[in-house]
Amino acid sequence: MNMTTNTLVNSKLVCVALNDKAQLAALESTFNEAPYKKPPTQPVLYYKPRNTWNLNGAEIEWAKDFDGNDVPAMVVGASLGVVIGKETCRVSVDEALDYVAGYTIVGDFSLPEESYYRPDIKGKCLDGSAPVGPEIVAADKIANPDALSVCINVNGEQKSVFELANMERSVAELISIISRIMTLQPGEIIAVGFAGERVAVAKGDKVEASIEGVGTLTNTLGGA
Amino acid sequence: MNMTTNTLVNSKLVCVALNDKAQLAALESTFNEAPYKKPPTQPVLYYKPRNTWNLNGAEIEWAKDFDGNDVPAMVVGASLGVVIGKETCRVSVDEALDYVAGYTIVGDFSLPEESYYRPDIKGKCLDGSAPVGPEIVAADKIANPDALSVCINVNGEQKSVFELANMERSVAELISIISRIMTLQPGEIIAVGFAGERVAVAKGDKVEASIEGVGTLTNTLGGA
Repeated sequence: MNMTTNTLVNSKLVCVALNDKAQLAALESTFNEAPYKKPPTQPVLYYKPRNTWNLNGAEIEWAKDFDGNDVPAMVVGASLGVVIGKETCRVSVDEALDYVAGYTIVGDFSLPEESYYRPDIKGKCLDGSAPVGPEIVAADKIANPDALSVCINVNGEQKSVFELANMERSVAELISIISRIMTLQPGEIIAVGFAGERVAVAKGDKVEASIEGVGTLTNTLGGA
Repeated sequence: MNMTTNTLVNSKLVCVALNDKAQLAALESTFNEAPYKKPPTQPVLYYKPRNTWNLNGAEIEWAKDFDGNDVPAMVVGASLGVVIGKETCRVSVDEALDYVAGYTIVGDFSLPEESYYRPDIKGKCLDGSAPVGPEIVAADKIANPDALSVCINVNGEQKSVFELANMERSVAELISIISRIMTLQPGEIIAVGFAGERVAVAKGDKVEASIEGVGTLTNTLGGA
């Protein structure tokens, strides 16, 4: 792997799963089965650890299986990335946005997810699978982060549009809740929500994730 | 919180759950229920992120609930910590121990776990809940890491003994498997396994986690 030491992420990249209302609705019958018999009552979080952090423009390695062979399929999602500006511990929803330094885009290349129960470390922690960028746009440039849309284009063709108005929990709600679970530090990033339907990608594909006013994060899949 | 910037951990602390053979045997009937209908076939991993990292001698904060009230119960586990010495990517079981710089002890203070399905971010990511220490003992001082035992004493009384010979997967097997999921870097630490039965602790308790030849990690619970 190429260890990228100079990324936009400082210390922690937390992603929020299952924050797309349409996805939650589609999974409702699954959630009502064992073992939970109800939908999640709290945000479901996962980490993209340091070995995943990457940059705008980087080539994303095609993943390999246990034996070192290329995996048959990969998918991508993209999220607004909320960059924390100061130590954030147990803040209210009303004050939460005051703790934001700026916004960026987080890409999440992964293996297709097979279940929503056990933490999917194998699928989510691929080396270099979380490009973040192209830059951090200052918070005061974005009037309402929940009004943004995240678009994914593959080889120039639009594959996914996710309006953040369709998030189960807003940016401010997430910051408030997460800050009661763990203290957040400046430079840490929360990827607040992905469209439930991930986009299939192939070797050599050019993936562009765009948010108006935040920019376009461009990466190419390796392995072609 | 008190952010500990100078910990023994560099970049990543990965913990292996469900690596106690006795625990796996006890959970067998649960594993055979929905949704999986079988025990895990791969190691189940979780992270202790940077806000959790702490030091030998530190007071561990008593956790608070969503509303800021003290939680009713906390538990502790302890593990041998394997400190990676060089970039480790897709190594074999036979060569895995050559990538170890040394050994230490990882404490894991958490909320009692309610289920083994969704990633328990809330219970495992408490600020300052992962003391690591007291030091890193060079790998060549430990002839066979799988022959060690981890003891937990609370207020001087022995509460738990976990012989690593009872781990489902050995230290070398874990390094090999994890290195196929993500590349590990020098200074990153794997907590290889905890006794399935965590130890209940109370405010003000003094907790000592010991491994012969590695040392004793001592922490006191706050909130008393």
